[in-house]
Amino acid sequence: MANDPGPRRHSDRSSGAVTLQQVATRAGVSIATASRALHGGHGRVVNEELRTRVLAAAAELNYVSNAPAQALARARTSVVGLMVHDVADPYFGAIATGVMRAAAEYDLMVMLTASFREQQLELDYLVRLRNQRARAIVLAGSGFTDGEFTERLAERLAGFVEDGGRVACVGDHGVATDTVALDNRGGAEQAVAHLWELGHRRIGVIAGPLGLVTVRDRLDGVRRALERRGAPLPAERVVEADFTRAGGRAAALALLARQPELTAVFALNDGMAAGALAALRDELGLAVPGRVSVVGFDDLPYAADLHPALTTVRLPLEKAGVRALELIVDDRDARGTRRIVELESELTVRSSTGPAPAP
Amino acid sequence: MANDPGPRRHSDRSSGAVTLQQVATRAGVSIATASRALHGGHGRVVNEELRTRVLAAAAELNYVSNAPAQALARARTSVVGLMVHDVADPYFGAIATGVMRAAAEYDLMVMLTASFREQQLELDYLVRLRNQRARAIVLAGSGFTDGEFTERLAERLAGFVEDGGRVACVGDHGVATDTVALDNRGGAEQAVAHLWELGHRRIGVIAGPLGLVTVRDRLDGVRRALERRGAPLPAERVVEADFTRAGGRAAALALLARQPELTAVFALNDGMAAGALAALRDELGLAVPGRVSVVGFDDLPYAADLHPALTTVRLPLEKAGVRALELIVDDRDARGTRRIVELESELTVRSSTGPAPAP
Repeated sequence: MANDPGPRRHSDRSSGAVTLQQVATRAGVSIATASRALHGGHGRVVNEELRTRVLAAAAELNYVSNAPAQALARARTSVVGLMVHDVADPYFGAIATGVMRAAAEYDLMVMLTASFREQQLELDYLVRLRNQRARAIVLAGSGFTDGEFTERLAERLAGFVEDGGRVACVGDHGVATDTVALDNRGGAEQAVAHLWELGHRRIGVIAGPLGLVTVRDRLDGVRRALERRGAPLPAERVVEADFTRAGGRAAALALLARQPELTAVFALNDGMAAGALAALRDELGLAVPGRVSVVGFDDLPYAADLHPALTTVRLPLEKAGVRALELIVDDRDARGTRRIVELESELTVRSSTGPAPAP
Repeated sequence: MANDPGPRRHSDRSSGAVTLQQVATRAGVSIATASRALHGGHGRVVNEELRTRVLAAAAELNYVSNAPAQALARARTSVVGLMVHDVADPYFGAIATGVMRAAAEYDLMVMLTASFREQQLELDYLVRLRNQRARAIVLAGSGFTDGEFTERLAERLAGFVEDGGRVACVGDHGVATDTVALDNRGGAEQAVAHLWELGHRRIGVIAGPLGLVTVRDRLDGVRRALERRGAPLPAERVVEADFTRAGGRAAALALLARQPELTAVFALNDGMAAGALAALRDELGLAVPGRVSVVGFDDLPYAADLHPALTTVRLPLEKAGVRALELIVDDRDARGTRRIVELESELTVRSSTGPAPAP
């Protein structure tokens, strides 16, 4: 890496003692210069005049250098934290692949955390990554719509950034960090447009957990697309489900029991779509797509192998992982400006969608 | 954690200066006791007599305590390295899930490395995990049959262990570490027995990369099972393939072109089985299982959703991850004894296998 981010201030702060920042302020230099003057370290040498000023300030303030803390601070710089929800989910596998490939290129090591969608665990891991002196964090699980959680998340991320850490989000987490934006709304709109063109007017939605920003955005896309066509989505055509195959199966059964006249089911991820396909085909004996069309979201590697092969919205997940890591590494224009990289979605049409059956 | 593993010796060694080990030897105490006497630290207090002996030895040898190194050594203790080949492969996703869940329970952080099957990268990552002061390493990618590589791997692992690190392998890596053994041979034998009972006598094998221990063992199981039945496996019925869907597709086409009389194909992982199913069904127009039966290996989550649902050998991968982490954490009986935890495989029969067609 080109830049040594300089010493962190964990230990100075928590001890309540004189901080390096105070020494730097007194000497009228940057904290990096103060650090180099006092401790040496990588890179540029400090000129004699500045060095004298810093040493004098340190003496006046009775500053005690914390060598282990500095050693630790330097050790921090090659680790990137990657925070996901569920490592067994191929969605995260794809993002992680991008992050890992890019990390290898930049000679960084990746520390992986899986919160299994427990908010408190996610906050705890942030603290631990800070304690581990992670140089940067990629938040790759979906954000939560819970405002209180998001506030606490923002606070902890701010603390991490204050310490010199970098943060990039994959998808919207409700925090103003550098972000790789995924086109969840647009992708959902494309899927609805496709179904609409095939004549479907009674479309049910298998949503994932409604507390996830990803689900909220995809559902927004569906609503918007249907409203634009003069056919607002009735509440009873949406079922909340666990983001898994089992969740999709149960939701499909519930949805069709309640709304047997549906001609299409849009599952907001491929795992749920796989479960819905199995339920429709094997348990309800409904032809797909003859009687019911099914659409998924994400285009995971197995989508083409489902039966019938799944029509789904493709997100460039591996690329999202690569770009997130690049945002973290390349800080040329990062000072004060939030950067958003927008990635596009694309509908992949396969065999699980067809013309709506005649009424 | 119950035991503080004590300071590591990286810095002492590399500097060529007097080491803590030399001080401990001179004082006739363990290195942990020497460390506690000189630096304080967690846990038990050293009695005054021992303390005096250690201080005297340190003075005689002119030992210089390396505080940052010790701080770093202590920082090491909550990180476990998890080494896999490919994070996008659900096989590793399942193992990683087990490791992550157990790590969370023991309050450990996981550093993930993905070598994408590059041997040198795997060796490099070992060094980096050592430099990162990882407390332990779980090797979860398959071992390689390459003896030279395995020797270098063993050397690097030994260095890591000498430093007080712990190592556990998932599957056989040709190194004498604690190991969670996967029943690759036995699983393959079960699959062959199942096909044999269905009347299949002309069975083709889609092997993964032959340089992987996992592939060698699965193939051994096939050979052994067929030999026992008086029908040794001809070389031309085995095709090497990339461990992916695309690899399985190409191999199935090659195999059937060469041996059109085959009535069954055994793909040595589920990804390749998915590709083989697609090739047989969509490209060759062969009925599965009417004309050709297909068996996979691993029982990944999507196996039940393939078309037809895949008969495959189930390995308890998540459990393997949990047990590997437990081996690392629980060192009650680890001194000098290699521990091997054997996990069983189980054939899961679904719809992709049926009676061999009449000749």
